[in-house]
Amino acid sequence: MTVFSNIDTFLEANLQTSLTELKIYCQQSSVAAQNLGMEETAHMTAAMLEERGFEANLYATDGFPVVFAERKGKKDKTLLIYNHYDVQPAEPFDLWTSPPFEPEERDGKVYGRGISDDKGHFTSRLFAIDAILNEFGELPCNIKFILEGEEEIGSIHLPDFVREHQQLLQADACIWEFGGVDHRDIPMQYLGLRGICYAELSIKTANQDVHSGLGGSIFPNPAWRLIWALSTLKDKNEHIKLPGFYDPIIPPSSRDIEMLAALPPVSDEFKSRYGIKNFLKEYPNDTALRIASVFEPTCTICGLTSGYQGPGSKTVLPAKASAKVDFRLVPNQTPAEVLKQLRAHLDREGFEDIEIKFLGGGPPARTDPDDTFVKLVVETATDAFGSQVELVPMVGGSGPNHAFVTTLNLPVVTTGIGYPGGNAHAPDENIRIDLYLKGAKHMARIIQTFGKS
Amino acid sequence: MTVFSNIDTFLEANLQTSLTELKIYCQQSSVAAQNLGMEETAHMTAAMLEERGFEANLYATDGFPVVFAERKGKKDKTLLIYNHYDVQPAEPFDLWTSPPFEPEERDGKVYGRGISDDKGHFTSRLFAIDAILNEFGELPCNIKFILEGEEEIGSIHLPDFVREHQQLLQADACIWEFGGVDHRDIPMQYLGLRGICYAELSIKTANQDVHSGLGGSIFPNPAWRLIWALSTLKDKNEHIKLPGFYDPIIPPSSRDIEMLAALPPVSDEFKSRYGIKNFLKEYPNDTALRIASVFEPTCTICGLTSGYQGPGSKTVLPAKASAKVDFRLVPNQTPAEVLKQLRAHLDREGFEDIEIKFLGGGPPARTDPDDTFVKLVVETATDAFGSQVELVPMVGGSGPNHAFVTTLNLPVVTTGIGYPGGNAHAPDENIRIDLYLKGAKHMARIIQTFGKS
Repeated sequence: MTVFSNIDTFLEANLQTSLTELKIYCQQSSVAAQNLGMEETAHMTAAMLEERGFEANLYATDGFPVVFAERKGKKDKTLLIYNHYDVQPAEPFDLWTSPPFEPEERDGKVYGRGISDDKGHFTSRLFAIDAILNEFGELPCNIKFILEGEEEIGSIHLPDFVREHQQLLQADACIWEFGGVDHRDIPMQYLGLRGICYAELSIKTANQDVHSGLGGSIFPNPAWRLIWALSTLKDKNEHIKLPGFYDPIIPPSSRDIEMLAALPPVSDEFKSRYGIKNFLKEYPNDTALRIASVFEPTCTICGLTSGYQGPGSKTVLPAKASAKVDFRLVPNQTPAEVLKQLRAHLDREGFEDIEIKFLGGGPPARTDPDDTFVKLVVETATDAFGSQVELVPMVGGSGPNHAFVTTLNLPVVTTGIGYPGGNAHAPDENIRIDLYLKGAKHMARIIQTFGKS
Repeated sequence: MTVFSNIDTFLEANLQTSLTELKIYCQQSSVAAQNLGMEETAHMTAAMLEERGFEANLYATDGFPVVFAERKGKKDKTLLIYNHYDVQPAEPFDLWTSPPFEPEERDGKVYGRGISDDKGHFTSRLFAIDAILNEFGELPCNIKFILEGEEEIGSIHLPDFVREHQQLLQADACIWEFGGVDHRDIPMQYLGLRGICYAELSIKTANQDVHSGLGGSIFPNPAWRLIWALSTLKDKNEHIKLPGFYDPIIPPSSRDIEMLAALPPVSDEFKSRYGIKNFLKEYPNDTALRIASVFEPTCTICGLTSGYQGPGSKTVLPAKASAKVDFRLVPNQTPAEVLKQLRAHLDREGFEDIEIKFLGGGPPARTDPDDTFVKLVVETATDAFGSQVELVPMVGGSGPNHAFVTTLNLPVVTTGIGYPGGNAHAPDENIRIDLYLKGAKHMARIIQTFGKS
């Protein structure tokens, strides 16, 4: 019988109550990209924190509000928990088994848009706090929550908010919005995130679509202009051709490679899960694949649109065309530099007519694997998840961790309820209920141990 | 007072009745590409002909039915009239001033999807027949109507239908589905159509969209594959790079160039109407522009689709991507050859993974400008439209005229109600009511003069 017996008993007994709260939270859609339900969700988030005795406030930004909440604890040490209340768009709707904003439980999972990214993480943390308050009537340390509403659109205003509220956000350690297990159910500790620079490239050449028989030979075609412009950004060997793009890159250290080499194979798992025949390149081994997947920058086309896209044929010369492109950045690349390089490159290649709209981004950032808080989180995970944690020096995704790591100078750790089948950003997004419980158990252990340390 | 006074009086007096019939016909949507209302419209078309004493029948094809109708006349000469009852898709709906399938009269025009292409042409011809029957109680010659339901999707089954029904379709001359005036209101006689080869290029690399942070560095991206493949089809100098693509081309004759040179300038008109800043190339004069616009083949991207296309950002690696591409063909190119060249080219460039789906097409075809029926149509137009006709050796659009010109060995002429502001294939498609009346007057003259010649 561990010191966490009562807490675990509470969590096991009240699991359905917490899941019900999560389902209600997910019914409230909050798609930042589409300005869908954002204010409502911010208020709902604050109310959920107030129910736990937190003092919660909404802070206006030039975009969606930041929810900040604080509750004092026994010891004057502060844990800062970062989550976000916005979710990805749910499109394409027809690929969902159940409607994205009507959470449904099936086979030990709960499905819904945003349930894994990031609403389930948030409620599992509230659930851990419920267990601690039930057992001890107070928190062992101060806890601050910061939830933004723009994570899925590049955390546009969060870095400025953090810079301008350093006193408010003062803390000793930071828990990141996500975390979880890999395909073997081993909990992973992610110590860094790639940066991102998300841009829309667009061109308009006429005031209306034109019959392709009329204009095909003599009118400019924006789709062709876009294709030719895009084809100059990256060659078929995956070399990104922006001038100076690779210059600031710091290659992975031997410690980084060591950590990645200690991780299990992933290539077969990736191939079967996503139906991929071959990877982009032939990697000599899984460590090489892992290094490429996080320590190489990318230029990904996330979307393309022009002209007629329905069934069958429509003989039309489009008036406009656009592409959504995301660059994932590795230390020490920055979105500002990439945007400059992109404009310079397009101009040099003769594509002054392609407009660039910056849709958000931030630089990469990493936490020291030898930080004492990292050790605390790793050790408590073993008990909660029933297996040793593995360290991952950086992951391929992005987030505004730069603001916490660099501006607030905090160690940032991950823990949570994620798993590889969670379909974040895709149809049938889901969480596993068993991992939801484990995530809450881990969070309770982190809070208690941190408060006593 | 001409011999057509009574006919003209009838047409002027009954204009609203005919427009009402046209509006009802346009309310019945018939989008072949989307299989919308096709059977209903075929039956409605046959009924409209039966009301005029035609014997009308639907002929099944592997696609949408062909409507064929015939009414005998005084003299045993036969005029074959070709129209189509299908229309283009109405997307994008939000760019229509009034709903596309609720025809609305504004400022001397009637707006609606398919009203110009091609339903207004059809009803104006019925209207001319009404006037003749009202005046004479019989037709001066046999008239046959053939209306297909697949013109907007490449007339997939019409050439075979014509080949298999040569006896049924036997005639002495053929009236094409369209015709009309240019931007100065001068009636034009279009003597040929470019061919077309419409294909969809597509690629699927995974069974689902993937978070771009996960897959961006290591998973294949179908949008990139498509962009690189498309960028090899045509270079920035508009040179189409399929092997042998230009080989079969017969350049325009000196007579062709003469006819084009006699036409008025169009470049300023094109620029202001469509909001085009510059043409694809710098043409020394308008004749050169006109030659390029019809005697050069094209490779036009009509549509592009992949991944996320909504507002804002979504960080996703798409599972699939596709493009709609139409090649306009000049004598003596054929769609079959172009498809072969396209496959060979993509394979040679390393894009075996790009699938090609043929969505329809046909070869180009032309009628002799010195044919006696052409002369009859040209001469009667002067009276109906109030100005001389100008001859155009070929236009940039396409249609299954090859089946009529070559298979049935008929002279094919154009006449009708079109004008450059009609927005065929675009939002706010419309007809001008004054031209509708003139088109009907011309058709009545053609029928009467043909019957007596």
